Amino acid sequence: MSERKAFEVTPKEVEFSRWFDEVIFKAEILDERYPVKGMYVWLPYGYQLMENIMNVMERLLRETGHRRVYFPGVVPESVLGREFRFIKGFEDSIFWITALGRKKIQERLALRPTSEAIMYEVLKRWITSYKDLPLRIYQIVPVYRYETKATRPMLRVREIVFFKEGHTFHATYEDAVKQVDLEVEIYKKFYDELLVPYIVVKTPPWDTFPGAKYNYDIVTIMPDGKALELGSAINFGDLFAKTYDLVYMDQNGEKRYVNTTSFGISERSLAAMISIHGDNRGLKIPPKLAPIQVVIVPIPTKGYEDKVNEFSKSLHERLSSRFRVVLDDEDERPGFKFYRWEMKGVPARIEVGREETEKQFVTVARRDTGERVKINLSELEEELEKLFEDIEDTMKKQAENYFNERVYHAESIEEVKEHVTQKMVSFPWCGLDECGHEVEEEAGYGLLGYEEGYYEGSGKKCIVCGREAKHRAWIARSY
Amino acid sequence: MSERKAFEVTPKEVEFSRWFDEVIFKAEILDERYPVKGMYVWLPYGYQLMENIMNVMERLLRETGHRRVYFPGVVPESVLGREFRFIKGFEDSIFWITALGRKKIQERLALRPTSEAIMYEVLKRWITSYKDLPLRIYQIVPVYRYETKATRPMLRVREIVFFKEGHTFHATYEDAVKQVDLEVEIYKKFYDELLVPYIVVKTPPWDTFPGAKYNYDIVTIMPDGKALELGSAINFGDLFAKTYDLVYMDQNGEKRYVNTTSFGISERSLAAMISIHGDNRGLKIPPKLAPIQVVIVPIPTKGYEDKVNEFSKSLHERLSSRFRVVLDDEDERPGFKFYRWEMKGVPARIEVGREETEKQFVTVARRDTGERVKINLSELEEELEKLFEDIEDTMKKQAENYFNERVYHAESIEEVKEHVTQKMVSFPWCGLDECGHEVEEEAGYGLLGYEEGYYEGSGKKCIVCGREAKHRAWIARSY
Repeated sequence: MSERKAFEVTPKEVEFSRWFDEVIFKAEILDERYPVKGMYVWLPYGYQLMENIMNVMERLLRETGHRRVYFPGVVPESVLGREFRFIKGFEDSIFWITALGRKKIQERLALRPTSEAIMYEVLKRWITSYKDLPLRIYQIVPVYRYETKATRPMLRVREIVFFKEGHTFHATYEDAVKQVDLEVEIYKKFYDELLVPYIVVKTPPWDTFPGAKYNYDIVTIMPDGKALELGSAINFGDLFAKTYDLVYMDQNGEKRYVNTTSFGISERSLAAMISIHGDNRGLKIPPKLAPIQVVIVPIPTKGYEDKVNEFSKSLHERLSSRFRVVLDDEDERPGFKFYRWEMKGVPARIEVGREETEKQFVTVARRDTGERVKINLSELEEELEKLFEDIEDTMKKQAENYFNERVYHAESIEEVKEHVTQKMVSFPWCGLDECGHEVEEEAGYGLLGYEEGYYEGSGKKCIVCGREAKHRAWIARSY
Repeated sequence: MSERKAFEVTPKEVEFSRWFDEVIFKAEILDERYPVKGMYVWLPYGYQLMENIMNVMERLLRETGHRRVYFPGVVPESVLGREFRFIKGFEDSIFWITALGRKKIQERLALRPTSEAIMYEVLKRWITSYKDLPLRIYQIVPVYRYETKATRPMLRVREIVFFKEGHTFHATYEDAVKQVDLEVEIYKKFYDELLVPYIVVKTPPWDTFPGAKYNYDIVTIMPDGKALELGSAINFGDLFAKTYDLVYMDQNGEKRYVNTTSFGISERSLAAMISIHGDNRGLKIPPKLAPIQVVIVPIPTKGYEDKVNEFSKSLHERLSSRFRVVLDDEDERPGFKFYRWEMKGVPARIEVGREETEKQFVTVARRDTGERVKINLSELEEELEKLFEDIEDTMKKQAENYFNERVYHAESIEEVKEHVTQKMVSFPWCGLDECGHEVEEEAGYGLLGYEEGYYEGSGKKCIVCGREAKHRAWIARSY
């Protein structure tokens, strides 16, 4: 029992937010005891996990012609402030540098809150002709936003450590529209690999990103019934180009404004994965993303210690060429080790005891279901591969069930009001601002956005005005 | 001729610093037109190259038990200032954040100049018992130092983008000494892979890192005869532990101070590689590190365009599974393409013309020597592998010659004074401070450091006092 104690957490169903904080600390993802509020230390295990996740994103980006760059973390005030609609969205949240050593600075510098402004300032020198377009770049960098609401690890932070920001440049508005569609496709594939369910919505006009024509948000729902925005894809049209004088020469030698888009995700992706899949024993990590896929735990019986240890070592060596595997031969009791690696979400645990060494098999415990299976040594690798596929399928189904339980399709304002305190609620919407606002007022929360044209031709009616519904709108409490 | 013009640079032997600036811009490593002095934009090609270099470092670190973490980029003044010897070294170079949005901040925050202070502050919570030691972590992060001397891309910057800082924690001073030796070994392997020649020196006591017991520097020499510090490995003993109250319980239940070390490198590693190997046509990149190892350039003859293009495409497909290869089928003349890829330092260029398609061979031009060789299609991959090995050997030898030409072993103060204006100069030293200072005064430059015990028992005499020499000391003009 004492072994378990070190890994006990507040049950997820009792108080999700405490469960989350305890699990990410006990699984050694983050250390929250950093002396600046809203900033956290990424521990080796958490860093490796986030790296694996970002590798998925980078693969998807490189396959689609995006190239990684780095722009400095510090931006002059004059550049940042040039586009007033944009800066207005950030003016209360900038970290300002005003002194260098013992001297006052001449022009204030901002820690980057996002990089549109500074990139456009520099890129007007890269882009001269239609031949330079399209141009697709991205960077993965920390960004800084002074959140005034209560901060929460990974969910609402003042330093977003893994901000993947993509920025693209196109000759025409139509090209930018296609690009934004591509960005949404990239995000869908990404969250599919993370086994995180989501909706994709266009935000209502009154909640569009500062300076944007339109943007899509990708949204999931957390165990407490609150919606979490997981990423956005933004079409700026030529608005920024006009502010930053971003022009190119077209085929006819005429000057035209560049159309731009941007799209971003962050460590919220990991927060969602942890929250949706984790249980009261800790994390559950999809095998493809797990920093450790297999842990080997020797269970020595008196008189058989050497045999068990030897067998464990040979297994470790054998499996290392194909899997990310750890042999836990520390001086702790097996029960303690079981809890430790369950907390960390390792998909498969191999137990090696006297019987296993004598009969040449292993016992494998699955993290997702807790089941134990026996596998003969002769087919170990193949069976483990199959097991991982099965774990992935099972986790996917669990996530779908999870999601469906937390979504409600309302047909009236009353239903919206009834369910929005628990769930993410959809409703048929005509698309008029006033109808959207009325639902927001009645429900007491903002619209997340809408699936465009979802109800077109379906005969469904707007739940406010009764006119023909065009879109499926979504509303929820939000992070 | 006009094709060449776009890639013309100031000859390296005429003015190295202009050559360097022009090459890194024309090879698309950096864009220096960033609106904050001393900060630069990393372009896709440069970013990829630096990533390949950092991957070498990360492999060496992981093999030796170092694990990656992330500590926030912003540090409270009270934490940074706790160790006065340390802060004294940085007090003129800190970027200070004093405002958040439209509000003044209560306690100033520093952009991290390096992370010893903040790590020790947090790690005293991680380390309690001897079982927690040794602990070896690293991060690759930007650090900010307000350089007041003239800034130079990669060489003297205000934002070091690729700062790899390792930090380690040990039970005893002896363990820390062994760790620093390991750090030096890691750096030697690293620069060997980059084909960058170096010396390793212990810095003289009067130039030791603030707060350190001792430190080693790894130093190379640039084409202009100036020494460039490429990395350092620092033993802090228990000094920081005392300041930050970093203690552990030993096997006997007694409290002891932790011994710490740190070691860092940066994008100066790339600057050295570029400077030492590059020529007046641009970069030369070792094949293992090259973002593009092979470029295929079709050379169409009238009437044979389709055949040449088809052959080029099939080659591209075939080689892609084994090499990093680009087919340059843009609408430019072959000569222009040759210059472009030479500037970027691509180790091998495959030329495909009419003869090649008819006789089923390829012509390969080596970037390092400019030689052209013919390779039969049947043994293309094997021959390319061999070619890359030969390129690496050749570059290594060139670097050794380069280094030997720029090093002088002086036997008197007069010789030091004569050669220090051109070269990196060694001399026999007894080890007494006053003798070291006298050489510094006479030469007009500071000692880089010394190879400890190099001359012990050799009978060599100190060039100042004539007593028995212990060390081989080094002196040079410096970056």
